[in-house]
Amino acid sequence: MKDQRIKATYLIETSFDLATAAAIMAGEQSCGTFVRVPGETDELRERFSAKVDAIQEIAQVVAPTLAGAKMKAGVPVRRALVMLSWPFHNVGANLPNLMATVAGNLYELAPFSGLKLLDVDVPDAFAQKYPGPQFGIAGTRKLTQVYDRPIIGTIIKPSVGLTPEATAAQVKTLIEAGLDFIKDDELMGDSPHSPFEERVRLSMEVINTYANKTGKKPMFAFNVSGDVDDMLRRHDYVLAQGGTCIMASINQVGLSGVAKLRQHSQLPIHGHRNFWGALSRSEVLGLEFTAYQKIWRLAGIDHLHTNGIRNKFCESDESVIRSVKACLESLLGGYYIMPVISSGQWAGQAVDTYKAIESTDVMYVCGGGIVAHPDGIAAGVRSVRQAWEAAIQGISLTDYGKTHAELQKALEYYE
Amino acid sequence: MKDQRIKATYLIETSFDLATAAAIMAGEQSCGTFVRVPGETDELRERFSAKVDAIQEIAQVVAPTLAGAKMKAGVPVRRALVMLSWPFHNVGANLPNLMATVAGNLYELAPFSGLKLLDVDVPDAFAQKYPGPQFGIAGTRKLTQVYDRPIIGTIIKPSVGLTPEATAAQVKTLIEAGLDFIKDDELMGDSPHSPFEERVRLSMEVINTYANKTGKKPMFAFNVSGDVDDMLRRHDYVLAQGGTCIMASINQVGLSGVAKLRQHSQLPIHGHRNFWGALSRSEVLGLEFTAYQKIWRLAGIDHLHTNGIRNKFCESDESVIRSVKACLESLLGGYYIMPVISSGQWAGQAVDTYKAIESTDVMYVCGGGIVAHPDGIAAGVRSVRQAWEAAIQGISLTDYGKTHAELQKALEYYE
Repeated sequence: MKDQRIKATYLIETSFDLATAAAIMAGEQSCGTFVRVPGETDELRERFSAKVDAIQEIAQVVAPTLAGAKMKAGVPVRRALVMLSWPFHNVGANLPNLMATVAGNLYELAPFSGLKLLDVDVPDAFAQKYPGPQFGIAGTRKLTQVYDRPIIGTIIKPSVGLTPEATAAQVKTLIEAGLDFIKDDELMGDSPHSPFEERVRLSMEVINTYANKTGKKPMFAFNVSGDVDDMLRRHDYVLAQGGTCIMASINQVGLSGVAKLRQHSQLPIHGHRNFWGALSRSEVLGLEFTAYQKIWRLAGIDHLHTNGIRNKFCESDESVIRSVKACLESLLGGYYIMPVISSGQWAGQAVDTYKAIESTDVMYVCGGGIVAHPDGIAAGVRSVRQAWEAAIQGISLTDYGKTHAELQKALEYYE
Repeated sequence: MKDQRIKATYLIETSFDLATAAAIMAGEQSCGTFVRVPGETDELRERFSAKVDAIQEIAQVVAPTLAGAKMKAGVPVRRALVMLSWPFHNVGANLPNLMATVAGNLYELAPFSGLKLLDVDVPDAFAQKYPGPQFGIAGTRKLTQVYDRPIIGTIIKPSVGLTPEATAAQVKTLIEAGLDFIKDDELMGDSPHSPFEERVRLSMEVINTYANKTGKKPMFAFNVSGDVDDMLRRHDYVLAQGGTCIMASINQVGLSGVAKLRQHSQLPIHGHRNFWGALSRSEVLGLEFTAYQKIWRLAGIDHLHTNGIRNKFCESDESVIRSVKACLESLLGGYYIMPVISSGQWAGQAVDTYKAIESTDVMYVCGGGIVAHPDGIAAGVRSVRQAWEAAIQGISLTDYGKTHAELQKALEYYE
């Protein structure tokens, strides 16, 4: 029999006895509290209580990390892993209600000076409601006709301020330089200075012309984020213009909006994770990417930003690699999505990235790492492709650079 | 001339020179970075750059609070308030894109060991796109026919496990006890063990019967949270059954889903803020309620949870009071919503709450604080009403209790 329970793993920090603390979490997120209320029979508790499946102490800390918790005097503050599970029938296949159950009020419970959702697992019943990524890795490769290497991309810059005409002119330059993929910045949507439809129309004219000539259609992820009806309308417009991808700021649009977009969409959804830092940067609050990516794969995105190693943000390389690998692991027997590696990327990280992830099923998005190449954008693209060739063949960048001029130039310029 | 700029205030923590740090924020969230890219003309920068409007140092800390930031050796780590502003034409009237601008990637910027969005202001142009609360305080009072005092409510308990029949039986007890308002727990939605429509149908039968008899219809906030089409269908069902309120877990549904619900709804939207702890509990990450409630008022909710003083969670009374008052302040000349005071509430907090907020325009939601009253639920409701009478008349609870038996009993039992 299939295990029809919802499971979640947490990091907690508390001065409470760990078993008591875990029982408070389980109680608050299912049948209620320690004080029985009328109607709360033994049978009801047996059928609907969340269960504490495991508790593992991992560390003591000198002081509570977050303020406001009810701390017991003279007792050490400890960190522990806690595993809880819920019967599926408590929730049903409903992503917002799943989140309210595994990641709702419990962040405010008084015993905890830290609480972070690390991982979550849902039973197969969710698959009937949420079919997941419609294109994923295979569909994205088919649309871009890029196989056996990363899809190499860039971002329109400057992020804000270009007219639709200027954007289209930049698109022309970028695709003629050999880029497989271009994306809107998350700051660009449907603004008065660059109306969405005009930007899409002019950019797709350029892309369609190029595709007719070369047989290869670069993918542009147009940022449709906004109200639901606007997003659907923008999707339809991109589709009608021959576009092959839409982008959404998933944290800002939210689960219901993204799931609706997935139901409607005939295009891959490029998931931008801006606001992710707010959800994850505290060591003891919010959630880990392992849990996060599962929820969004269920909602049905096809690509998800993971950051890249040696990035310009705050994230460690270990964390980045863990994120990329998480996207490439099976969820409910599939639901594969394409990790989007970006931020400070250029040819230089290809070998180390490939060594760590052992896969080329990624988007590799470079800004200055391609367009600022001393010999031009086309040379920038070639340098990145060469770097991944070296990675796949197990050759060092230095060695491969000796016979590949663009890579050699990149190594000299960027390092 | 109207100021058509978007404004945001942040708390930052950094070892960078404060002017440099603020300029990095502004650059990252508008035209780009310090390194100019082709096409980034002076005119473009002038028209589209975010501006640093003010910087105010407020403290030094001994060590960086969040890990991962690029810290300068031998330089103090400082906290400061930073005010940024953007031209409206960068974004347009689009809530998800507004959030991507004021609360997006900047949480991950390397110079910051802390960054929290404290406040945000949008120009009037947003009002044309987002009409805001449809019912708000006045509409909610009209539907409940409760004036000049708080709307007194409770929550169905146990949170999970009751059948629709058991829920309806509890509803009957609660409304006959005099409650104005009842809400689903956020853990209850449309689950296999309590299908939404059956729960609504049976509960509304009870409520409609009572309304026909007494002329007063208590409000039930049914939790419609879920996928967009499911939420709209559930709304329609509640409306058809004569219901007067729907509830949504706003953080889990997300901005686009809630805005869509607002467009469709003919009922007030009760905004449940579960997950709020994850967004706010770190002193230096996420966002403050001041900013948060404005965004959700624009999205169009009518009620918003604020916690209550002396609550069972981690929040201080000062923070709670600030939150309640924020909901009652004008936004774009209106957009008033009803703060929902809950968590550990009973008659005991009424006087202090009223003294602090100087208003009765709140929902006052008690669980055990009403239903566990030694003389029964009706006595519990009366004790809370009496406590607010005392508050409004400026009489102490002790004095008012002398002539009001239910309040007296509550004071003896709960204190």
